[in-house]
Amino acid sequence: MIPPRSGMAWRLGAGQLVRIVDVEGGQSGDLFAVAADDLEDGQSSGRTFDMGGTIQLSAGSVLYSRRSRPLLRIVEDQVGVHDMLYAPCSQEMFEIQYGVTGPHPNCFDNLARALAAFGVPGATVTIALNFFMNVVVGPDGRLEIRPPASRAGDNMVLAAERDVLVAVTSCAAPGANAGRAQPIRVDVAA
Amino acid sequence: MIPPRSGMAWRLGAGQLVRIVDVEGGQSGDLFAVAADDLEDGQSSGRTFDMGGTIQLSAGSVLYSRRSRPLLRIVEDQVGVHDMLYAPCSQEMFEIQYGVTGPHPNCFDNLARALAAFGVPGATVTIALNFFMNVVVGPDGRLEIRPPASRAGDNMVLAAERDVLVAVTSCAAPGANAGRAQPIRVDVAA
Repeated sequence: MIPPRSGMAWRLGAGQLVRIVDVEGGQSGDLFAVAADDLEDGQSSGRTFDMGGTIQLSAGSVLYSRRSRPLLRIVEDQVGVHDMLYAPCSQEMFEIQYGVTGPHPNCFDNLARALAAFGVPGATVTIALNFFMNVVVGPDGRLEIRPPASRAGDNMVLAAERDVLVAVTSCAAPGANAGRAQPIRVDVAA
Repeated sequence: MIPPRSGMAWRLGAGQLVRIVDVEGGQSGDLFAVAADDLEDGQSSGRTFDMGGTIQLSAGSVLYSRRSRPLLRIVEDQVGVHDMLYAPCSQEMFEIQYGVTGPHPNCFDNLARALAAFGVPGATVTIALNFFMNVVVGPDGRLEIRPPASRAGDNMVLAAERDVLVAVTSCAAPGANAGRAQPIRVDVAA
């Protein structure tokens, strides 16, 4: 169980499954994967969009690395609404966009710290999969963040396409949930 | 003048202007900027989309860094059609998506090499501004690459919002031009 506004990381072997559960409903989070054999070869939004030919990810979509290698595949998806456009929320984002003055929990630091325990450099952490995050792209390119579409118990399952390190957070930003930061449950299959 | 399928980099002081010219028309390229005082603080598509509230960039748009700092501002734009979704073309992309077997010129290496001369680590180079690249996002999120809309002589001007290193390429990928790789001219104001 990932407490609200925090993150954890795991090492997955090729073929291993991970399930991400929105326990109470209306909570989104970030997922960032890195190839275990090259700790600079992290997930890439731009490669994922190019290889899949779409910015809308759901069951069947593969998350690709900077070096065009498959990292994770979405094999089940009860929500079908995710984002890979926005950068993870960060300390600077809270200061600039929310006027926060002191330290604030944030997905970038939560991803980077969890992965640092496996030796992953902070520079590897770029754009995450913002699972359950509900972003609408207007015909003119304008972005609108709506409340997550996930209900209590909704979940998605990803399969490791190779040995990977994967970090998951429960997002700390106000727009990422239905008004109250909640936990995210992660089940890693043995 | 940047020869077809190659790249160059410059250091710009705050306020300095750079003009990017499609000399013959129908050619796109990549631009990637890095803060001169932190060589890991490179341009971020996700921060740029978040801060601007749109994926469509044109005059007035600011390119933000990973740490949410403004790097470059688009001050003039005769084309108004650019992309910041796709990752730069790369050696792996040419091998996987085009069946190329030997070394192939590519924007990622061209950006990374040009910036390496200023000490920028390769890991800093992520998603570039694909200037003049014409990408249409369908209502279902599907991506379609159309020929660049730029005509001979069309150009855009960017202003440095702080001291930056900026690399520019003329793109090596078939979809990035009107069928023939062409040069891109870059004018850096004194």
